Amino acid sequence: MTPFKLTDELVADIQQLIADKKNAALRLMMKEFHYADIAEIAEELTKDEATYLIKLLDSEKTSDILAEMDEDLREGVLKNLSAKEIASELEELDTDDAADIVNELPDEIVQQVISEIEDKEHAKGIVELLRYDEDTAGGLMAKELVKVRESWNVLTCVKEMRAQAENVTRVHSIYVVDDEDKLKGRLSLKDLLTTSTKTHIKDVYIAKVDHVNVNEKSEDVAKIMSKYDLEAIPVVDEIGRLVGRITIDDIVDVIKEEADKDYQLAAGISQDVEADDSIWELTRARLPWLILGLFGGLGAAAIMGGFEEMISKHAILFFFTPLIAAMAGNVGVQSSAIIVQGLANDDLKGSISNRLVKEMLLALLNGIILAVLLLIFTWIWKGDFLTALAISISLVVVIIVAGIIGTFIPLFLEKRGIDPAIATGPFITTSNDIFGILIYFWIAKLILGI
Amino acid sequence: MTPFKLTDELVADIQQLIADKKNAALRLMMKEFHYADIAEIAEELTKDEATYLIKLLDSEKTSDILAEMDEDLREGVLKNLSAKEIASELEELDTDDAADIVNELPDEIVQQVISEIEDKEHAKGIVELLRYDEDTAGGLMAKELVKVRESWNVLTCVKEMRAQAENVTRVHSIYVVDDEDKLKGRLSLKDLLTTSTKTHIKDVYIAKVDHVNVNEKSEDVAKIMSKYDLEAIPVVDEIGRLVGRITIDDIVDVIKEEADKDYQLAAGISQDVEADDSIWELTRARLPWLILGLFGGLGAAAIMGGFEEMISKHAILFFFTPLIAAMAGNVGVQSSAIIVQGLANDDLKGSISNRLVKEMLLALLNGIILAVLLLIFTWIWKGDFLTALAISISLVVVIIVAGIIGTFIPLFLEKRGIDPAIATGPFITTSNDIFGILIYFWIAKLILGI
Repeated sequence: MTPFKLTDELVADIQQLIADKKNAALRLMMKEFHYADIAEIAEELTKDEATYLIKLLDSEKTSDILAEMDEDLREGVLKNLSAKEIASELEELDTDDAADIVNELPDEIVQQVISEIEDKEHAKGIVELLRYDEDTAGGLMAKELVKVRESWNVLTCVKEMRAQAENVTRVHSIYVVDDEDKLKGRLSLKDLLTTSTKTHIKDVYIAKVDHVNVNEKSEDVAKIMSKYDLEAIPVVDEIGRLVGRITIDDIVDVIKEEADKDYQLAAGISQDVEADDSIWELTRARLPWLILGLFGGLGAAAIMGGFEEMISKHAILFFFTPLIAAMAGNVGVQSSAIIVQGLANDDLKGSISNRLVKEMLLALLNGIILAVLLLIFTWIWKGDFLTALAISISLVVVIIVAGIIGTFIPLFLEKRGIDPAIATGPFITTSNDIFGILIYFWIAKLILGI
Repeated sequence: MTPFKLTDELVADIQQLIADKKNAALRLMMKEFHYADIAEIAEELTKDEATYLIKLLDSEKTSDILAEMDEDLREGVLKNLSAKEIASELEELDTDDAADIVNELPDEIVQQVISEIEDKEHAKGIVELLRYDEDTAGGLMAKELVKVRESWNVLTCVKEMRAQAENVTRVHSIYVVDDEDKLKGRLSLKDLLTTSTKTHIKDVYIAKVDHVNVNEKSEDVAKIMSKYDLEAIPVVDEIGRLVGRITIDDIVDVIKEEADKDYQLAAGISQDVEADDSIWELTRARLPWLILGLFGGLGAAAIMGGFEEMISKHAILFFFTPLIAAMAGNVGVQSSAIIVQGLANDDLKGSISNRLVKEMLLALLNGIILAVLLLIFTWIWKGDFLTALAISISLVVVIIVAGIIGTFIPLFLEKRGIDPAIATGPFITTSNDIFGILIYFWIAKLILGI
C-alpha cells in the first residue's frame, strides 16, 4: 500500500481547482482519496474552500469527511451549511458519529436539523444518544447493531439480519434478546455460517456475553475491551435492555486520547492542545504550570535567603542548589510516572506502605551511587572533604524524600478520586524543588556545624 | 457486567486449593473465569503454583492464559513443561501468539517443540513467522485468515470458507487472491450474506483493499489501521502475495506500548519497567538519567563558580538559580512534548523555521507575563529595582532560548531518524538548566555592570 502523502503541491493544486471551479476535475480527483485523507487535505484549506468541497461531493463521502475532520474546521464548515444540508450528512452517518456532530451544533438549530432528517428511526436514535455524557459508554455507543430474538429460528434470523445488516457498517456479533429486548447472549457469524437453517436460536446462542452498562466510564470500557480482546461490546441500560454497541475503533481513539492527555499533564500542559493551535490557546495551556513553577522558584529563593549567613564561608553550597533541585525533581517525576502508569494499567497490587518502603530502598540505592560520584567530583574540585561530604549526604536524603513524595502523591490523589496523572510533571517538580532545597541546607548546616 | 476483581482472599483460596490438590474444585472454579482473568490471578502465584494450574486445565484455555501472562512468569512456567506439553499449548494458539512464545523459548528446545506439533500446516505457519522482526508487520501478523480465489463462485466460496473459518477465531474480511496467491481484493461478510450463491467471485469482490507490506514498521501499521478505522489488514510479501493478517487487538497493544514508552522516556525512565519490577531493574532504568542530571548539576555549579566574584554584592542572583533552572526546564519540556506528540500523530505541517518563530513568540508572551510577576515580587522583597529588573529580563531570554531548544531538538532528532521522544524529560531539562543558568548570569552581569 502506497501510503497517502499530503504535499504542499497537492494542496496548491486543489486550491487552484477550487478557485477555478473545476468541479468535474475535483470530483474525479477526490474519488481516488479515502475520506480520512480528504479530511487531512481539508485541514490545509480555508473554511470556505473546505465548504466548497463538502458541497460538491456526495453526502455518502462528505459525511465521513466531516466526522473525521478537526472540530474547529468542522464548526466553520457547518456554519456554512443549511439545516437541510446538515441533516443529509447526518443521514449517512452512524448514530454515534451523527450524535457527536449534533452535540457541537448551536442549540438554536439542533431542533431544525433533527426534524429535517428523513429517516425518523435514525433521528430517534441520534436524539436518544444526545442525553448521554460523552465520557460514558452511552456517549461512545451507536444504535446500529444486529439483534435477533431467542424465539426465532435460524431462517427467520438470517432474513431479519439481512435487512438489519443494510444499516450496519460492520457486523461483529449478532446479539440475542428476549421479547422485552433484554440482552440474553450472542451468536457468532461463524456459528451462523455453520448451522442449519432449521435450528432454533435459543438452542444455539451463547448465553454468556460481555457487556457494559450505559453509564460505565469510557476509560473502563476501554480497559475491558482491550483486556478481553473484544472488537465490539453491547451496551445495556439499567434494567438490562440492549440499547447500543461500542466498536473497537472508538476505543482506539479513547486510548490515544487518554495517553495524549497523560503525556501532556506530565509535561505541564493542562489542556488538549496541538502544535498547530494558536499562540493564545497554547499560552492558556502552558502558563498556569509555569506560574506554579515561578512560585516554587520564589519559595526556593526565600529558603536560600534564610540561609544567607552561610554564603560567606560556604558559597559552594549555593552553587549546588540547581543540582539538588534537578535531582529532587527527576527522582520525583520518575517515581510518580511509574505509579501513574501502574494505576492506569491496573497493575498495582499490595499496600501503599509496601510501595513506599520499596521506593525508599530504591531511592537509597540510587542516592548512594549518585552521592559517591558527587563526593568524588566535589572533593577534587574544591579540595574540601567536609563540605563535599555534607553536600553528598544531603543529596541522599533529598533523593529519598523526593522518591517518597513522588510515590505517595499519585496514590493519595487516586484514593481521593482525582486523576493521579496531574501529579507528575510541574506539580511534583515544584514541590520537590522546595522540599529538596530546604532539606539540603538544613542537613548541610547540621554537618558543617554553622 | 460485573467486572472481575482480583482480591487477596481469592488468591489465598486458590493457593489453598492448589496446596490441597483439590483438582475438581479448582477446575470448576476456573471454568467461571475468563482466561485474561486467570492470567491476572497467575501473576500473584508462585511459578510452581502457576505451573500446577496450567497442567491441570485444558490446553484450549491454558494456551490463552499463557499467551496473556507476563513474560517473566511465562518463562518460568514453560521451563516446567516438557516439549510435548508446550507443543500442545501452541497447537491451540493462533500462529502469531504461538510464534511470540516460541521466540522466547531457549534455542535448544525450539526444534523439538516445533516437531512435536501435530498439525504440520500450523507448525509451518509458526516457523514462517519466526523469521520476521517483532517490530514489523510480519512480526504482528497471523497466518490464520479466510481467502478465496477470484475464479470461484459464491457456492464453492462458502463451502471453502466454512472449512477455513474453523481455524480462524474471528472472520473480518474474506480476502480474494488470484491463482498465484496475489492479493486482488476483498469480499465483506455482509456482501456474502446478501449475494446469491451462483454469482462469481470475480464479479462481486471489491478490488480496492488496504494492505501493508510484511516489512512495514508496527508503528506505521498502527497509524494506518487507526486512521482508516480498519479492524484487520492483510499483509503481503515483496511480490504482492497474501502472507498474513493483522487484527486490531494486536494494534491496540502496539498503541499502548508506544504510549507507555513515550511517557516513560519523558519521565526519565529508559526501559520498559513496571512498578512491580525488582529494585535492580528499576535502578537500571532510572539511574542513567539521574547521572545525566548529576552532570548537568555539576555543570551548573561550575558556571556559578565562574561568577563567584558577584556573590558578595549580589547574593540574591544566586538565590534565583533554582527558579531559572526550573523555568528553563519546564518551558523546554512543554515545547518538546508538543512537538513529539505532533510528530507521533503526523500532525506537524510547515517548515521548521516557521515553527521556531512561533515558539519564540509564544515563549516571549509567556516570558513577559512571568517576568512582570517576578519583577514585582523581587522588587517588593529586596527593594532593589535594578537587580529585580536584571533577573526578570534574564528570565525572558532564558525562556525564549529554552523554548527554541525544546522545539529544535526533537525536530532535529526526527530528521536524523532518532526517536524524538528521547528528547523530552531529563535530556531537555538538563541541557536547559545549564544554558539557562549561563545566560542568566551573563545577562545579569551585563545589566548590573559588574
